[in-house]
Amino acid sequence: MIILEVDLGERSYPILIGEGLLGRADVFDRHVTARDLLIVTNTTVGPLYAPALREALPRRRVVECVLPDGESHKTLSTVARIIDVLVANRFGRDCAVIALGGGVVGDMAGFAAACYQRGVAYVQVPTTLLAQVDSSVGGKTGVNHPGGKNLIGAFHQPVAVIADTATLESLPPRELRAGLAEVIKYGLICDRGFFDWIESNLDALLARDPEALAYAIHRSCAIKAAIVGRDERERGDRALLNLGHTFGHAIESATGYAKWLHGEAVGAGLLMAATMSRECGLMSDADVKRLAALLERAGLPTEAREVEAAAAFEHMRIDKKVQAGRIRLVLMRGIGESFVTAQYDDGALRRTLEAHFG
Amino acid sequence: MIILEVDLGERSYPILIGEGLLGRADVFDRHVTARDLLIVTNTTVGPLYAPALREALPRRRVVECVLPDGESHKTLSTVARIIDVLVANRFGRDCAVIALGGGVVGDMAGFAAACYQRGVAYVQVPTTLLAQVDSSVGGKTGVNHPGGKNLIGAFHQPVAVIADTATLESLPPRELRAGLAEVIKYGLICDRGFFDWIESNLDALLARDPEALAYAIHRSCAIKAAIVGRDERERGDRALLNLGHTFGHAIESATGYAKWLHGEAVGAGLLMAATMSRECGLMSDADVKRLAALLERAGLPTEAREVEAAAAFEHMRIDKKVQAGRIRLVLMRGIGESFVTAQYDDGALRRTLEAHFG
Repeated sequence: MIILEVDLGERSYPILIGEGLLGRADVFDRHVTARDLLIVTNTTVGPLYAPALREALPRRRVVECVLPDGESHKTLSTVARIIDVLVANRFGRDCAVIALGGGVVGDMAGFAAACYQRGVAYVQVPTTLLAQVDSSVGGKTGVNHPGGKNLIGAFHQPVAVIADTATLESLPPRELRAGLAEVIKYGLICDRGFFDWIESNLDALLARDPEALAYAIHRSCAIKAAIVGRDERERGDRALLNLGHTFGHAIESATGYAKWLHGEAVGAGLLMAATMSRECGLMSDADVKRLAALLERAGLPTEAREVEAAAAFEHMRIDKKVQAGRIRLVLMRGIGESFVTAQYDDGALRRTLEAHFG
Repeated sequence: MIILEVDLGERSYPILIGEGLLGRADVFDRHVTARDLLIVTNTTVGPLYAPALREALPRRRVVECVLPDGESHKTLSTVARIIDVLVANRFGRDCAVIALGGGVVGDMAGFAAACYQRGVAYVQVPTTLLAQVDSSVGGKTGVNHPGGKNLIGAFHQPVAVIADTATLESLPPRELRAGLAEVIKYGLICDRGFFDWIESNLDALLARDPEALAYAIHRSCAIKAAIVGRDERERGDRALLNLGHTFGHAIESATGYAKWLHGEAVGAGLLMAATMSRECGLMSDADVKRLAALLERAGLPTEAREVEAAAAFEHMRIDKKVQAGRIRLVLMRGIGESFVTAQYDDGALRRTLEAHFG
């Protein structure tokens, strides 16, 4: 078992990465003190892992809340359902919520925990690659609004992230690939050596080699934990983690959160950020092509022809990264060298959108 | 103009108290930097004060969201309406929400600001005595759930509280009295001298003597600011501010937030806390009678016969003050000496409920 620490003063917490953690009572006994627990999961993940998780929680009052699966259900009304269950069971401020599932479950369970009684504890038990490397870490919780992705939410840190790598064995191939988009993102943000490693080990990752996956998760979480530790509330550096996301969110919003997986939209968004960086004269064409080749090998989309460029732009304008009316973007000076800026050539953005959208 | 500071490190903010502040552009220019502003108000307060407030906000983009009046509308779906307006106007993370109204408006506008884009700025412009002395200060935001009062919410501090005492001139007498319940609370919590002052000046307060009201607001806010500064998240001392509230919330919940004003329920709750303190052998009968006499002179209820004692107890059990299944109460050793405890005689609680409920 690998243990990483997210260092946030009194809100610090551990990320535990290892095989079979989900069923280990000793792990939960050590990191979760609450007696009353609500497991929030969905109809796909619940049947697979809730029984094992319950075994790891003896001598507690455990209630389950099973949500429909999919990003299209990540709404305020689904969060209200979770809160209804907490109220109906008379859970007090000393309860804890356990998010068992992917990013959607984690975002909603975390937001419900943030709002219930103005904040109760929650634990992330991510069961997808995407959630293990990204969404379960850092305390961003929330839901979508018809007008935009994650427009409603809270910063609320978990008390622990318990990532059981054995759950990746049952992950649908499409979700595995979606998770790899976020792994690739970390290399692009600040670690060219990690990007090289991903290129060399992509086949092993796609074949679910446990050692390769464990390393990718460890390295991704370490990068994310360091950035979040420096900037919990996204006043500076943390915005780097949004590399590819402003473009990606536009895809998700424009397609109603129904057709594209979040990681797929991020995959296409990463290449859009690279194209934009090249159009601004920042990134070499060779680096852009290297990224495109890696995304294609990973089976990730690199364009979104079904969305009109003008529609994508409108969705970008309501994204949270807008400041003083201007869309802030994460661009790259090359692989492993990203930065946040609102100063760029509007023509470059137009050309980027036209190159990748319909 | 009186200026008090709520000292919370980087979340510190001023409370401004004075006549006519609501229409002063210099005050808003100094304390509100956002260019895009959403005024959240209700159908009663909006027509009275929104025009003057707009005058104080030149050179800004000002949008209004007018809600129905009353605690029964303090729900998650009303907050969703506020967020819909923010999204529809494409407000970014750098916008601010201005709560113009009483406690209900402030709680909902603050919660919408807490959740929109994971937190935007908000300003409290309280127009009731209750909001000026209590609910606008301290960052508690939220809405009710059918199962209990303020069960859904967030801690989110405003960037400023601007209390215009001139708004109290138009306040309905019943709301003035409800606000006095919270003023009396501060004396009971920790300031016997202030309690004496209220007794001596109650007639002036009821007659809306500006000087008496300004002093009562100043003293109440100073006590609240000091307590919140010590314990922002209610891990200790801040719970003292709930004196009378666990009983009061039970009244409000049991009657569907429709018939009783919050301050009225708190008024009755204060006497219940006193009765309970006497039943536990902590508070003298003379002090309980002094409080009862003051509440009666202020025109506040001291019992809630329409609610069955058993029903009240059930509502208390889902209140946020429950820990490890036990209701925590704020009790008194006398006027001005309150403390939080979960160790009390259950018989004393039963006798208290039977003495004041149906």
